[in-house]
Amino acid sequence: MVPLRFYRHLIPRLSAAARSPFSRAAAAASCAPRPIPALAMAAYGTGASADRRLLFRQLFEKESSTYTYLLADIGDPEKPAVLIDPVDRTVDRDLNLIKELGLKLIYAMNTHVHADHITGTGLIKTKLPGAKSVISKASGAKADHSVEHGEKIYFGNLFLEVRATPGHTAGCVTYVTGDSDDQPSPRMAFTGDALIIRACGRTDFQGGSSDELYQSVHSQIFTLPKDTLLYPAHDYKGFTVTTVEEESAYNARLTKDKETFKTIMENLNLSYPKMIDVVVPANLVCGIQDPPSKV
Amino acid sequence: MVPLRFYRHLIPRLSAAARSPFSRAAAAASCAPRPIPALAMAAYGTGASADRRLLFRQLFEKESSTYTYLLADIGDPEKPAVLIDPVDRTVDRDLNLIKELGLKLIYAMNTHVHADHITGTGLIKTKLPGAKSVISKASGAKADHSVEHGEKIYFGNLFLEVRATPGHTAGCVTYVTGDSDDQPSPRMAFTGDALIIRACGRTDFQGGSSDELYQSVHSQIFTLPKDTLLYPAHDYKGFTVTTVEEESAYNARLTKDKETFKTIMENLNLSYPKMIDVVVPANLVCGIQDPPSKV
Repeated sequence: MVPLRFYRHLIPRLSAAARSPFSRAAAAASCAPRPIPALAMAAYGTGASADRRLLFRQLFEKESSTYTYLLADIGDPEKPAVLIDPVDRTVDRDLNLIKELGLKLIYAMNTHVHADHITGTGLIKTKLPGAKSVISKASGAKADHSVEHGEKIYFGNLFLEVRATPGHTAGCVTYVTGDSDDQPSPRMAFTGDALIIRACGRTDFQGGSSDELYQSVHSQIFTLPKDTLLYPAHDYKGFTVTTVEEESAYNARLTKDKETFKTIMENLNLSYPKMIDVVVPANLVCGIQDPPSKV
Repeated sequence: MVPLRFYRHLIPRLSAAARSPFSRAAAAASCAPRPIPALAMAAYGTGASADRRLLFRQLFEKESSTYTYLLADIGDPEKPAVLIDPVDRTVDRDLNLIKELGLKLIYAMNTHVHADHITGTGLIKTKLPGAKSVISKASGAKADHSVEHGEKIYFGNLFLEVRATPGHTAGCVTYVTGDSDDQPSPRMAFTGDALIIRACGRTDFQGGSSDELYQSVHSQIFTLPKDTLLYPAHDYKGFTVTTVEEESAYNARLTKDKETFKTIMENLNLSYPKMIDVVVPANLVCGIQDPPSKV
């Protein structure tokens, strides 16, 4: 049976939007003017948006096979941007790209408390004090903004919807682009470790639950339009993207019935994550309000 | 001075198109019917095409940091597809994906004779006899189709234009999506090693020439619309894509004047490629007409 606390995330689905600190007005207020480089930046988007407001970049960190995602609204004069799942080792690369593209990073976000690498959000805050860290309230980690299911995180006129997808950890969320005409099409979902291409994250630590993960993916990800592009936090085989339709047909674990899935997850016999005792404590405070240099 | 043979590629720019074996009619004829999997495959594209005919996937081979690109016209009932720069080690991954997506691979193409990994085209031909190998005539390598500057390679109603971009090797080409209304927008260019993100391929072996490379990039790549998405054969820092505008502003080598560029390229002091003596001979015959198993 699905625990009651899971349903608390779902009802009402978007009730948190109105009181969100990520509202369009809040995003606009946080975009204080700053010099914009000469680069014209016209139509940088991959075409994911009909009006090409969206600049999108997928970035890879080889050691932990982590994907970091950069999204910006280049139709907004300030070019407000968000980074999803930055890694500490590649923060300089990411911030340099942001600078070259003339973007204003407003949010450094995590899908969850990672167990295999140190998030870049803490380091980003020391190097770019204007950026705010974001993670789910359910993660128990410290951040400038703790988000809940249903909130919308605006950057310019674009936004990401927060969907609670617990199961890999208790605090996992998936960030999903909006479904209205002025948002990118097809939709894009940043699934963290809830769903990875043809597989999913393990469920044997940090509040993990195979029962919850199954329910999360089937209720929050597989219910998205079938052409929704799914971008995971990791890939180990060189894939970069998948879709709802593809994973609904070919995911080696999540296409099974729930009991089979639970049996698979309980018999993975994975080794203890070698970095977990170092990185989880660090990641629990990597969205800290006061960067280490000031402590 | 630019050697005369370079200009031979450029004049007339698209003269070869009419007699190309890759014409729309030829592509249609090569698409013999075969069973199409049940997966509906609607609107898989990244939105790069207004009508979403294009399915596009970027795939990564970690050991040689090589990108392989899959493009297909999913608006065509046969879903004809091409693979650019497949790697031998990841052929099974690529062919499995093609099968899952219900595509019909018609061309396995190389941008040039690689010196750091063995191309997957030979292996693909043994596993999928219907697929044809493609490489430039100027490369001197064997393949089913030897292409020249200006030819169009059709897959369904979509096509790639061949642009000669010698300099890393004498036979390098860049494959560029078309510029008409029925082709993906923004345009996409698969630059091989002629241009890699913020850098370029070395020019000290296999007929390389820094003078030619500079001319190639400036005349054939930087002249594309500034929003053209540039996809290189390699990246070593975790970047996945760039644009003409971005490289015109920030490429560490190619934004310099030609003499400075040549000085940079002549002083890279790179070590001899460790795989070159094994892989170049293999790659020169990896588009072979008769797979090794039949020899």
